[in-house]
Amino acid sequence: MVRTFTRTITTPAAARMVRPGSRPFLSLLTDFGSRDPSAGIMRAVVLGICPEAAIVDISHDVEKYRVRDAALLLWSAAPYLPVGAHVAVVDPGVGTERRAVAMETARGDHLVGPDNGLLMPAAARLGGIVRVHQLDSPQYRLPVISSSFHGRDIFAPAAAHLAMGVPLEFMGPAIDPRSLRMLDWPEPQVHPGVLVSSVIYLDTFGNVKLSALVGHLFGAMGQLGMGEPVFVRVTDAQGTSDLELNWVDTFGNVPPGQALVYEDSYGRLTIAVNQGSAAELLSLREDAEVVITRLPLPPVMGDQQWFDPSLMDPSRMDPSLMGPAGYDPNAGYDPNAGQWQQTPDWLDDGRGPSPDGSEPVWSPPPTPEPDPTAR
Amino acid sequence: MVRTFTRTITTPAAARMVRPGSRPFLSLLTDFGSRDPSAGIMRAVVLGICPEAAIVDISHDVEKYRVRDAALLLWSAAPYLPVGAHVAVVDPGVGTERRAVAMETARGDHLVGPDNGLLMPAAARLGGIVRVHQLDSPQYRLPVISSSFHGRDIFAPAAAHLAMGVPLEFMGPAIDPRSLRMLDWPEPQVHPGVLVSSVIYLDTFGNVKLSALVGHLFGAMGQLGMGEPVFVRVTDAQGTSDLELNWVDTFGNVPPGQALVYEDSYGRLTIAVNQGSAAELLSLREDAEVVITRLPLPPVMGDQQWFDPSLMDPSRMDPSLMGPAGYDPNAGYDPNAGQWQQTPDWLDDGRGPSPDGSEPVWSPPPTPEPDPTAR
Amino acid sequence: MVRTFTRTITTPAAARMVRPGSRPFLSLLTDFGSRDPSAGIMRAVVLGICPEAAIVDISHDVEKYRVRDAALLLWSAAPYLPVGAHVAVVDPGVGTERRAVAMETARGDHLVGPDNGLLMPAAARLGGIVRVHQLDSPQYRLPVISSSFHGRDIFAPAAAHLAMGVPLEFMGPAIDPRSLRMLDWPEPQVHPGVLVSSVIYLDTFGNVKLSALVGHLFGAMGQLGMGEPVFVRVTDAQGTSDLELNWVDTFGNVPPGQALVYEDSYGRLTIAVNQGSAAELLSLREDAEVVITRLPLPPVMGDQQWFDPSLMDPSRMDPSLMGPAGYDPNAGYDPNAGQWQQTPDWLDDGRGPSPDGSEPVWSPPPTPEPDPTAR
Repeated sequence: MVRTFTRTITTPAAARMVRPGSRPFLSLLTDFGSRDPSAGIMRAVVLGICPEAAIVDISHDVEKYRVRDAALLLWSAAPYLPVGAHVAVVDPGVGTERRAVAMETARGDHLVGPDNGLLMPAAARLGGIVRVHQLDSPQYRLPVISSSFHGRDIFAPAAAHLAMGVPLEFMGPAIDPRSLRMLDWPEPQVHPGVLVSSVIYLDTFGNVKLSALVGHLFGAMGQLGMGEPVFVRVTDAQGTSDLELNWVDTFGNVPPGQALVYEDSYGRLTIAVNQGSAAELLSLREDAEVVITRLPLPPVMGDQQWFDPSLMDPSRMDPSLMGPAGYDPNAGYDPNAGQWQQTPDWLDDGRGPSPDGSEPVWSPPPTPEPDPTAR
Repeated sequence: MVRTFTRTITTPAAARMVRPGSRPFLSLLTDFGSRDPSAGIMRAVVLGICPEAAIVDISHDVEKYRVRDAALLLWSAAPYLPVGAHVAVVDPGVGTERRAVAMETARGDHLVGPDNGLLMPAAARLGGIVRVHQLDSPQYRLPVISSSFHGRDIFAPAAAHLAMGVPLEFMGPAIDPRSLRMLDWPEPQVHPGVLVSSVIYLDTFGNVKLSALVGHLFGAMGQLGMGEPVFVRVTDAQGTSDLELNWVDTFGNVPPGQALVYEDSYGRLTIAVNQGSAAELLSLREDAEVVITRLPLPPVMGDQQWFDPSLMDPSRMDPSLMGPAGYDPNAGYDPNAGQWQQTPDWLDDGRGPSPDGSEPVWSPPPTPEPDPTAR
Repeated sequence: MVRTFTRTITTPAAARMVRPGSRPFLSLLTDFGSRDPSAGIMRAVVLGICPEAAIVDISHDVEKYRVRDAALLLWSAAPYLPVGAHVAVVDPGVGTERRAVAMETARGDHLVGPDNGLLMPAAARLGGIVRVHQLDSPQYRLPVISSSFHGRDIFAPAAAHLAMGVPLEFMGPAIDPRSLRMLDWPEPQVHPGVLVSSVIYLDTFGNVKLSALVGHLFGAMGQLGMGEPVFVRVTDAQGTSDLELNWVDTFGNVPPGQALVYEDSYGRLTIAVNQGSAAELLSLREDAEVVITRLPLPPVMGDQQWFDPSLMDPSRMDPSLMGPAGYDPNAGYDPNAGQWQQTPDWLDDGRGPSPDGSEPVWSPPPTPEPDPTAR
């Protein structure tokens, strides 16, 4: 059940509007920071090529060099962006032989950036990759290419031309999508009654985002009722701690200062504190391992393995604490299990990413399930 | 003397220009931060509905959950914003039963956000509220409403449709404006010769903004001449301190490093340090009480009440240190007493917020004067 | 060899496009910060006057009061900005008698801001100043001028009118460009085999930008091969330290954590650490003096002068370590010696800033070469 977004998410009223000749749309996402002029220069380069462009800055304050953070933010934003050219640059390998690429997605967008995995989750969410070209035609780059600012010299110009309608194949030679670099993405593990996940992002409110989506949680333990308790074991370099949290639908449903688990607005499992920072108050850091169960886990002893799959033998567990049979949590980036079931027809036509089958569509394969014994 | 802005503040030259079919204008103000993608997603949702929109970000770095800060920033910006739809979201109650609303102001703007008081000072400044509707028509929302990101799912879509000309009443049922929640706003107290106020905002320069406008100060002690000294007593949890500052019109008129009191560019009483941070150098914090006089106050002794109104008996005071008789400092949000008296006709026609009387206009009532004996 | 940019730097494909009636372009650069509403208010004021404007924010997070930082950022961005009106406001003297000005450059831009030197490097880079006018016509200002926010009241309105085509002379009386204030800019000194420079900016990655351009380095010691070592002596208030760094073309060409010297994407000499902060790891601060040589300098002893020009007598040095004869490193702001030699014709027509000689063009004079014996 890979659900992708082959139409832009917008209001029913807007979806019925006829708007010929809409402005070209671009989005920008970098780790360039807001103090330096780099992000503004990219916008200026785009407008110098495509003066009518509507440009949205998703963020320029991604933590430096964190490709995975940027990939998550782009994945989050993608379904809400108008179809257009989306540039993402977190690029520690700039100036080396890593490739500069532009991909066409099944939804009709162009994703533009370095070939370091950054674009892959968003590509999958926009229906998969139809084709990829390398960016090396000098016609669509600035005349001199620096060794450290390809956002200005290569990516922004390519996106501006693509947004104006220049065909993707003009940018350079085609690339086999299977040669694209994948992202190192921590895939959650769904076991009967147990969800094993990890912290992937701390947002500016201090909310703690997990690698698991709410569908993974429900896959492991079935639907949770409002206010039901869950048990959360967190393990990082500092040790192990156990939390008991309530499953609620929003901050305001617990008193200020109290922690909670909820589904964030992108379908992601998130630990938060009402009007406080969960990251700080619960000392949660990125990449900490998080195990969620409905019953308390036995205490950790000595150098015992933190998670013993044999304890989780389904035949020994209460079926009411497990998720539905046949759930495949590793089928891909699926933000919307559960909630989006009620998606109206016009939002996602359900026909999959390539409606008429006229174009081959390649989706990044699911990352292999991690080996829980290898730590 | 409530002075509101029923015309946009712009240049004389621009006010004479004929510009049919101007672009729809929207502004955004949130506490979502610049690292996360939330603000960019709101912009993208607006452009997906209204591609021609001109969008201005007032700020996305309001301190988390500080509704009053955001209300102050919106109040500051409002007269300078083109008429349009203005979205403000600092919303600790998101997902609970607090209402989502859009108001039409007498100037013709739409203010869009949660019903938590955030929009009220700006509404008053734009001439008062003509009507209010709740945002619950599914036609003008995203198809699935999350429990924690109404900026994306409800407010940005509503504002985009309003900016395009969709009538306010299409958004949902009308609400009685008197049912709107008011903001807890610290109203300054003007006494003969004494102004009692408090710190409401520290800006990024470290300038310390008070709840009082310059009109309040002049109401208490008459016009001040350039360089005249005033005495400032600050009381907070740490204790009481006394300052002697000069009243000047701008930073550059005292040496670098020296403190001053001046009227900021919005008509607000402000304590600053030339090329330094007054907040830091004078240890001033939000909500500290600030008493301003022309003569030094007697020292504080024991647990003596910090401000004794009997000391301020007008009959015992030098009339030259008091403001004009009949001044009503609590008549509402009045940023411009004094300075704006020279406002040219075309800026504010003086006819009040509803020129032809065809529409009932409701303004938020002045907040009641606080009881100085209740602390 | 002063190389200026009388055409916008863009792609070959875009340079051939015919685009009549392009949108007016403005850029904004301030130290107003992203939390306060000031930057957003400037954008709103521009759009209230010129609704079709395409506005790019270069940065609003320049460190407070640092005129030189802002001048560097504007110099960096200028060649990449479409021709338009560029507003820069870092203005500790606001409200005093410093003048508000708008300059026309040979490229056709308008630079708008305070007369405190901030605009001068960008003016030189855009071909020099054709004419300057003071901003004092009330027709093109907001009706009331505050004493502390001329960005809103004077500069943004002037730029918006200029972008729409209002003639510069309508803004106020002409000023003799020679009366403009120059910026205190640390000019590097090129000696045979030795480059004496200083740190002028630390970017958000912690990269350490020097006052010297790569042309200065090559002028002192000839072209450097990829990976060649250079010796760097840093002197600041904390003392003197010596570094041996490799000259490479980008971060990715040394292992993570290793320091390097490279030419940044604006032609500027820069010290960096791959995936780390050179400012932090090497304890480099703004205004530290940096001496670069190909051979180790003798150790510093006692209160010996840190740089003894007699040691650098060309007749005693290996000619292979020196730059080409006749190089004039102080000929002006020359970002592109070396690299830009291959600039295609259409980018810079080589005819200098005033092709037909019809308009007198004034360029800021080169700052005088500092006296290396005066410290």
